[in-house]
Amino acid sequence: MAPSPSACVLIIGDEILSGRTQDANLKYLGTRLAALGIALGEARVIPDIPEMIVTALNQCRARYTYVFTTGGIGPTHDDITTDCIAEAFGCRVVRHPEAEARLRAYYGGRTNEVRLRMANVPDHADVELIDNHVSVAPGYRIENVFVLAGVPDVARAMFEAVAPTLTGGDPVFSQSVDAHVREGEIAERLAQIQNEHRSVTIGSYPFMRNDKLGTSIVARSTDKAEIARVLAKVSDVMRTLGGEPIMGPAP
Amino acid sequence: MAPSPSACVLIIGDEILSGRTQDANLKYLGTRLAALGIALGEARVIPDIPEMIVTALNQCRARYTYVFTTGGIGPTHDDITTDCIAEAFGCRVVRHPEAEARLRAYYGGRTNEVRLRMANVPDHADVELIDNHVSVAPGYRIENVFVLAGVPDVARAMFEAVAPTLTGGDPVFSQSVDAHVREGEIAERLAQIQNEHRSVTIGSYPFMRNDKLGTSIVARSTDKAEIARVLAKVSDVMRTLGGEPIMGPAP
Repeated sequence: MAPSPSACVLIIGDEILSGRTQDANLKYLGTRLAALGIALGEARVIPDIPEMIVTALNQCRARYTYVFTTGGIGPTHDDITTDCIAEAFGCRVVRHPEAEARLRAYYGGRTNEVRLRMANVPDHADVELIDNHVSVAPGYRIENVFVLAGVPDVARAMFEAVAPTLTGGDPVFSQSVDAHVREGEIAERLAQIQNEHRSVTIGSYPFMRNDKLGTSIVARSTDKAEIARVLAKVSDVMRTLGGEPIMGPAP
Repeated sequence: MAPSPSACVLIIGDEILSGRTQDANLKYLGTRLAALGIALGEARVIPDIPEMIVTALNQCRARYTYVFTTGGIGPTHDDITTDCIAEAFGCRVVRHPEAEARLRAYYGGRTNEVRLRMANVPDHADVELIDNHVSVAPGYRIENVFVLAGVPDVARAMFEAVAPTLTGGDPVFSQSVDAHVREGEIAERLAQIQNEHRSVTIGSYPFMRNDKLGTSIVARSTDKAEIARVLAKVSDVMRTLGGEPIMGPAP
């Protein structure tokens, strides 16, 4: 069991694994979940293969407080997410009356059978629609699993529709400080600072700007004052190494 | 066991899950692996937590022909990938003499203990360095696991250094055709075409351009002639729906 509240993101789709499409949902969901105090413990990108989706879903919904899936809920033959989620929960697929009503109202005379597939949900007592103000066809929640669209604008709208219903923890803040010092020069002092401040997670990321190597130090914690203390120490070390620390936006 | 040859990518790093950093390695690796005829079966983004890394690594190296890890092999305290890989393989960590020699030659008088951490590898009979012509510190292969850096330029250089050593299958080609027709209009005929051409995987992806909805159909197969036949049929359907099909680059 991951620290609670926790979350996992399942990105469903061959197009991400084949390299055709750059995923644009993970960064958004990770950022928003951190702000809500929900630790994103893992993300998996899985192909359009039913047994892979069912297995990953069952592993992750047992392990994390919340699971968010993206992709595979459209009207075409390769949209198999709902069938797989129903299988994972051991139930059939049914047409949701309210979802069907929304689709019929939107499509009018252009309503057809394949479009109505987007009103399908698992036949389970604890299912709730997730509003989609971008393109109408709703997502849904089933127990602790939130089934979102893959199209980024729609995935975001759906996430924001459910965000107020999530039980968060203390929000995690982060701030960075960058300087043109090398990781290999700052590493030893950084490890000491990490030891002195256990409630802060200190990450170190090399970068290259204007052909000059540098290091970005990121401090993450629920305690803003501790972040400030850590970054003050890191800045001092950077200055002693001849760097000019540039502080990122305050958390 | 996934279809052979297959691969899995493990993206190691809190900074991806927190949303701070946009992953830039998966799309590259997915594209290159497909071109080599190696199916990328799964990708996982996992945090800097040793037990998560060890578990994911052991699951995936048993399941896939090749595993590629990215991230966590730098000199700082948060770079724990090599320790975890050694633990997964049940061995200690040792300093690799050739890697140490390369680092000493590069850093000269600026060589220090933390920089030499980047010469650490698991103490295992089947370890081979992976060249890094960008920033010297090498990656390594241990059995079927390829340990790459996280920084995209370095990850790419390392992948290209090992690509000629990988045993590929028939390369998978893909081509797309786009038109301003809706998924819900084309879905039924598309499913028929998919049924008629089982050796081609047909994906359907909605898009919005100039405020107009459209659909991109992607055909993927080891057989270029079959891709052409599928996309000719899809284009015909698009025309009957009033769309003007725009064919993507030939595979």
